[in-house]
Amino acid sequence: MNGFGADNLPYGVAAPPGGAPRCVVRYGDDAIDLDALQREGRLPGLPEHTFGGAALNPFLALGRTAWETTRARLQDALGDAPRFPLATAEILLPVQIGDYVDFYSSLEHASNLGRLFRPDAEEPLLPNWRHLPVAYHGRASSVVVSGTPIHRPSGQRPGFGPTEALDIELELGFITGPGNPLGTPIPAAHARDHVFGFVLVNDWSARDIQRWEYQPLGPFLGKSFATSISPWVVPLQALEPHLVPARPQEPEPLPYLRTDGDWALDIDLEIELNGTTISRTNARGLYWTFPQQLAHATVNGTNVRPGDLYASGTISGPAPGSEGSLIELGRPFLRDGDTVTLRGAAGEISLGEVTGTIRG
Amino acid sequence: MNGFGADNLPYGVAAPPGGAPRCVVRYGDDAIDLDALQREGRLPGLPEHTFGGAALNPFLALGRTAWETTRARLQDALGDAPRFPLATAEILLPVQIGDYVDFYSSLEHASNLGRLFRPDAEEPLLPNWRHLPVAYHGRASSVVVSGTPIHRPSGQRPGFGPTEALDIELELGFITGPGNPLGTPIPAAHARDHVFGFVLVNDWSARDIQRWEYQPLGPFLGKSFATSISPWVVPLQALEPHLVPARPQEPEPLPYLRTDGDWALDIDLEIELNGTTISRTNARGLYWTFPQQLAHATVNGTNVRPGDLYASGTISGPAPGSEGSLIELGRPFLRDGDTVTLRGAAGEISLGEVTGTIRG
Repeated sequence: MNGFGADNLPYGVAAPPGGAPRCVVRYGDDAIDLDALQREGRLPGLPEHTFGGAALNPFLALGRTAWETTRARLQDALGDAPRFPLATAEILLPVQIGDYVDFYSSLEHASNLGRLFRPDAEEPLLPNWRHLPVAYHGRASSVVVSGTPIHRPSGQRPGFGPTEALDIELELGFITGPGNPLGTPIPAAHARDHVFGFVLVNDWSARDIQRWEYQPLGPFLGKSFATSISPWVVPLQALEPHLVPARPQEPEPLPYLRTDGDWALDIDLEIELNGTTISRTNARGLYWTFPQQLAHATVNGTNVRPGDLYASGTISGPAPGSEGSLIELGRPFLRDGDTVTLRGAAGEISLGEVTGTIRG
Repeated sequence: MNGFGADNLPYGVAAPPGGAPRCVVRYGDDAIDLDALQREGRLPGLPEHTFGGAALNPFLALGRTAWETTRARLQDALGDAPRFPLATAEILLPVQIGDYVDFYSSLEHASNLGRLFRPDAEEPLLPNWRHLPVAYHGRASSVVVSGTPIHRPSGQRPGFGPTEALDIELELGFITGPGNPLGTPIPAAHARDHVFGFVLVNDWSARDIQRWEYQPLGPFLGKSFATSISPWVVPLQALEPHLVPARPQEPEPLPYLRTDGDWALDIDLEIELNGTTISRTNARGLYWTFPQQLAHATVNGTNVRPGDLYASGTISGPAPGSEGSLIELGRPFLRDGDTVTLRGAAGEISLGEVTGTIRG
């Protein structure tokens, strides 16, 4: 089943030829039509029209019990569920994204970037890095689905013109389900109630624009022109068998960042540039885990909404050839016409791919 | 008419007792019911149900011609338009905010903060500051309407606990109308086609959390717990008579940031703490203007959507007592129970107020 068998069943939004967009589940090379399945009465107990819109948000809002029940019903229904082939369908952004947060959770990436952006500093990691999962808010409007062309951005580098340092960032992102009331943090132990699933993220970056603008308030135009995500949201439930122990943390995190159990994701990742694989790494090497990221992002009471996107930050490994960006790989920046494809898989569970081609 | 006469007519969302939220215009102490007015056929030419929802976004999306026509029709209809008293109405967030961007456009504020956050630096302004309107993305989910209680956030300061440095930031924000396609910048000269109107913004800030977390990716939890806005979006059209020349810029900005005409807003602003006015300033002193902010935010092709919020950054003047935050005013940080109210007016055009009380 090519990574999209009955143990995966990721969610997305697709439109068959001449039809309107609706929520679907990918099964092999087909889209199971969830709206049709619900109309047939085969997904009882869910609110009417849960799947009839062009985004998964209504389903995300229902929460974990509904997700688990629906998944079980789907696995039973696979034999004769209404479907259409993906080959001729239009595949759309799966979620209407409320807020997009980007972390910086790879020790190797943060160290590599620290050396490149602050070459005179003795210590590439800043003092806060091992104490909290550093993050910033990205641009939600320009999150686009895999396949969307990427316009080369112009800006101050500091001279004005098209960026001459267009880069990628290989990331993994989680999509949220039910949120929390403003003022009430989400404990790390409650992550399963709030994290629906995962997508691949390419956080396109214009390094020359970023370098000139980013002090003191962080990245803005160097990142906001586009962020691409894969179209299939793989449920956390499908990834449970691939949760493994995270790497040790020193110093021990504060209590609100402590977790029991295994929370690293054993997901193999790769970057392909114009048909050639240029990096291979694994998400299990991330220093901060997704329950820690969610607990940190809400410890001040910030409210999460269904359909938020929380990306990991660039995933770089310690070995040469396992870095998650061109600047770290020591490769030239992107030229017009270049195509970058990120892929991910946890054993038989594919995350699919996120691809984009640069337009001048 | 208390600043809300026929030359103002700001837009908002309100619900009369027992009624559903709908779009309204404030006229004196009444809410003109735009949904009822449209149902009466007195706003011809607009799409059905433009005003029946709980946000102004459908109207914002219609663009400048529709805004101007509607304003003229309203001014004609004031005598007998359907209305209800604001005194007993629930006044709600006026806009469903897509992306929230916060600038840093006051020279005095950026200099003051630079001295406070980087006391060892020779020059309080960073090298990019006079070349571009520095900005970052804030949290959209926690933008709340005036009157919403503000929970004192906890976090790493770097020890964990409730913030001991809860501050305010006096800002002015613009709300966008029609957006631009991804990849197509908005020229500064087109600002009137994209900027619908203005609100007051209180960008609550936890300085201890902010100081520890903000390097290298900018403010995150120090700001994301709440941002309050005033409920009445004053149309740019109402503020046209109060556009005045902006202060000189040195060096001359790059071509995409150059503008003709007068683009500073002569809006008097004040901060009241527990009934006492503690600061008075004016928005005309901002270094970067709103057309420059919009042109900069989109020069890389980022897409604006109807209902985005772009805030100015803290507005501080050069004189003592004209600063826009407690830390700059040299005052103690907020205690539980404190109430902060920001007010603004351009002559007879009131922006109303944005208020919030701290809860422990």
